Amino acid sequence: MSDDWIAVDWGTSHLRAWAMTGPEIRASAHSEDGMGRLSPEAFEPALLKLVEPWLKPEGATPVVACGMVGARQGWVEAPYRPVPCAPAGGGLIRALVHDERLDVRIIPGLSQASPADVMRGEETQIAGFVAANPEYDGILCLPGTHTKWAHISAREVVSFRTFMSGELFALIAGQSVLRHSVTTEGFDGDAFLEAVSESLSRPESFAARAFSLRAEGLLAKLPADTARARLSGWLIGMELAAARPYWLGQPVVLIGAPALSQFYAQALEAQGLTPLTADGDAMTLAGLAAAHLGH
Amino acid sequence: MSDDWIAVDWGTSHLRAWAMTGPEIRASAHSEDGMGRLSPEAFEPALLKLVEPWLKPEGATPVVACGMVGARQGWVEAPYRPVPCAPAGGGLIRALVHDERLDVRIIPGLSQASPADVMRGEETQIAGFVAANPEYDGILCLPGTHTKWAHISAREVVSFRTFMSGELFALIAGQSVLRHSVTTEGFDGDAFLEAVSESLSRPESFAARAFSLRAEGLLAKLPADTARARLSGWLIGMELAAARPYWLGQPVVLIGAPALSQFYAQALEAQGLTPLTADGDAMTLAGLAAAHLGH
Repeated sequence: MSDDWIAVDWGTSHLRAWAMTGPEIRASAHSEDGMGRLSPEAFEPALLKLVEPWLKPEGATPVVACGMVGARQGWVEAPYRPVPCAPAGGGLIRALVHDERLDVRIIPGLSQASPADVMRGEETQIAGFVAANPEYDGILCLPGTHTKWAHISAREVVSFRTFMSGELFALIAGQSVLRHSVTTEGFDGDAFLEAVSESLSRPESFAARAFSLRAEGLLAKLPADTARARLSGWLIGMELAAARPYWLGQPVVLIGAPALSQFYAQALEAQGLTPLTADGDAMTLAGLAAAHLGH
Repeated sequence: MSDDWIAVDWGTSHLRAWAMTGPEIRASAHSEDGMGRLSPEAFEPALLKLVEPWLKPEGATPVVACGMVGARQGWVEAPYRPVPCAPAGGGLIRALVHDERLDVRIIPGLSQASPADVMRGEETQIAGFVAANPEYDGILCLPGTHTKWAHISAREVVSFRTFMSGELFALIAGQSVLRHSVTTEGFDGDAFLEAVSESLSRPESFAARAFSLRAEGLLAKLPADTARARLSGWLIGMELAAARPYWLGQPVVLIGAPALSQFYAQALEAQGLTPLTADGDAMTLAGLAAAHLGH
């Protein structure tokens, strides 16, 4: 059909594609061909492998992609757009293709001069949310390896800040001296909320508190699921302490994977907020559609 | 001679030994046979390989060892002694040996119930300092992978706190998204002191500041030695903020490797302190001698 197109979410470690007709999903597919393992000439074959069955028999099928595919080490660099600006308001970059059945455009990321910050991929989720909620004035929090806090007003991203809390959690739990003290499964919800509160009060003690998990494991057989919950709570509490200018007295919507977003929701609820949540995958697709329809 | 003995510093990744006569060093040797790569039955051969030439022709030669050799996973567990207590005031544990020329004793580590904390090896450096400075009343800071802050009074360790700042630095600089933004060499001293000051003021922002190194590298070609200095400064500043009850208005002596201690010295000097320094290896040897002569 004339309004067939293809939506693509192309991150460092994943490639996901949807066959679309207007805003409707007809089919989906995914592979492990993330940007991190592809040389520039390998992007087109990786994409074709997934989407070839969906291409129109005649003419080029529009493909709109977001994520690290547009990084300097990606298929083609889609230069960051400086905030304040609409989250996906233009600047799509065309990728050079050999197959004439493809017309590939990449959504650029956003940048901020001071404090220096960048995002690539999250701007599309934000665009999806803003398309559905054009009057929203408040905060979006996108939990992940590098959690983003963004202030949205008048359909623009006014400012944002990235926190490495998720990556710090993974490094400490997986590769530090604490790797045997922290489980990979199980979670002590009370210990989590207590840790969030402790860290909001005295965020500076993180490096000492973390070692106490090891010591309490040796001295008092601290359960590993309690240790895991405390580590997570101290990191999220430290993040909430620093992000207070974002969330204090503001409406907050969490966009992300439900499993991770729920921890942020619990932590914010304990501070008296009532955050709403939106599914990260749904927002990605809505943002790709907004970018496709808008260009 | 009758007062010949052997001093041993046996950590996770190293084994160092000194042939001693009383307090005098006659010879030294070292190997890579750290506790981390030895099964329990491998400790005696690893030790003999280094010290056999130094053993007395008749009778057993006393050997005093400190460090992870006394951990649960070491040669023989030397149970932690709870503070407050003298840093190496007893409780040496004899290791079972097959060679009758060896008489091996291991110095136990110290523990603290609340906040839960442990040390193993640093107590010997502290003992070395206290033996030479019995009237000292103040703070010892032992910079390292797991930096220790200890309050010393009346020749005892009153309390202590461990910070994982060094391990966090190594993980973030070596294995996080920042690994290409941070050099392994070079250091921007001004950026370091500025970062210490920023982190003392707002320690909670660490996870966001860290990501800014990546962003500023992408957006403004931040030099990698500046990035390294900032990362170090933010971590040490966060540690100083939490350790303030230890150092504020107190005499501070730094015990450790000069290359690392100098960063702590600069950071403390910027807060108006005049910390003294003592060499970590010299303190280890002095502490082993004190334990040998005292038992």
